[in-house]
Amino acid sequence: MKETPLDSLIRAFAGLPGLGPRSARRIALHLLVNRERAMNPLMQAMAQTAENIRTCHICGNLDLTDPCAVCRDPARADDLLCVVAGISDLWAVERTGIFKGRYHILGGVLSALDGIGPDQLSVAPLLERVRGGAFSEIILALAATVDGQATAHYLTDRLHTLPGGTDLRITRLAHGVPVGGQLDYLDDGTITTALKARK
Amino acid sequence: MKETPLDSLIRAFAGLPGLGPRSARRIALHLLVNRERAMNPLMQAMAQTAENIRTCHICGNLDLTDPCAVCRDPARADDLLCVVAGISDLWAVERTGIFKGRYHILGGVLSALDGIGPDQLSVAPLLERVRGGAFSEIILALAATVDGQATAHYLTDRLHTLPGGTDLRITRLAHGVPVGGQLDYLDDGTITTALKARK
Repeated sequence: MKETPLDSLIRAFAGLPGLGPRSARRIALHLLVNRERAMNPLMQAMAQTAENIRTCHICGNLDLTDPCAVCRDPARADDLLCVVAGISDLWAVERTGIFKGRYHILGGVLSALDGIGPDQLSVAPLLERVRGGAFSEIILALAATVDGQATAHYLTDRLHTLPGGTDLRITRLAHGVPVGGQLDYLDDGTITTALKARK
Repeated sequence: MKETPLDSLIRAFAGLPGLGPRSARRIALHLLVNRERAMNPLMQAMAQTAENIRTCHICGNLDLTDPCAVCRDPARADDLLCVVAGISDLWAVERTGIFKGRYHILGGVLSALDGIGPDQLSVAPLLERVRGGAFSEIILALAATVDGQATAHYLTDRLHTLPGGTDLRITRLAHGVPVGGQLDYLDDGTITTALKARK
């Protein structure tokens, strides 16, 4: 049987993160029934974004301009660099509103299992940027996973080999109990870390 | 601050059923990062559906043709009519593959609270269709909610007033324990109904 446009639509939605066939069907139906109110604005927004969004050549962020708003902002500190794995991590840190330095997006973390080495990530541009910049502190804001921490280790080693690299302050995010987190839902590793880092 | 195209995109996604700001952000980012593989197919599918989908003037279903594939299918029984509240209910019954008659979509159920009376629903067309057709059985496949059952009551009364209406077999879906359902997760009403209808 040939796939109808409706089937294609449901399949396209079902492939998005967090959606399955059931939620995709529900969304497709909602769009078809509310063509004016839901489908057209969504189509317009997608067309506009697809046309206007650029990848920032400095940090790798997505924005309407290249360099992105963060890289262009003269009010941000030029001596503070936050290294994140992906764009969503940058957005997450930005939402806190507490960090006022620059970013560098790695594009992932090292993973022997997935065959991701330093060449697949934005490691060379990072080293180049740190070498040419005036950073005094590099925050490695990577996930508290084995791969994330291995990547942080690796980056620390590489950053230290740069001229003057040993003077760089290389920091990581603190580990501990998430704010609002119930102790009995947390894994032992987090509780152990939080206990050891108590203050 | 002016809303950027990216903000509009996230807002459009967040308004879809089952999605919130967090999942919308995740989807928007996925689409932007995978423009070729995810965004373009989705935009194409939406444009194609928006262009080609019609509302069937007989049953109210959405399809590429009017009348829809179900209404046009000569292999389906012309004496069996299944009345459902919405398009998603029609799809749900169709997925079972067990029903081989025709459909009528009401467009909702009666609701005093939401101010939905018979005039807001496709009740008159239903009566017209039954009067002009050769239906021997009408299945009222409405939700097992107060509003759904009130609607079924109302439709039964109205259908009985039709010429020859008292000869119509008017049936409803059986109530009971959902297949695969755990007893201890079910409400008392369902268990009571299932017990009374035991066989």
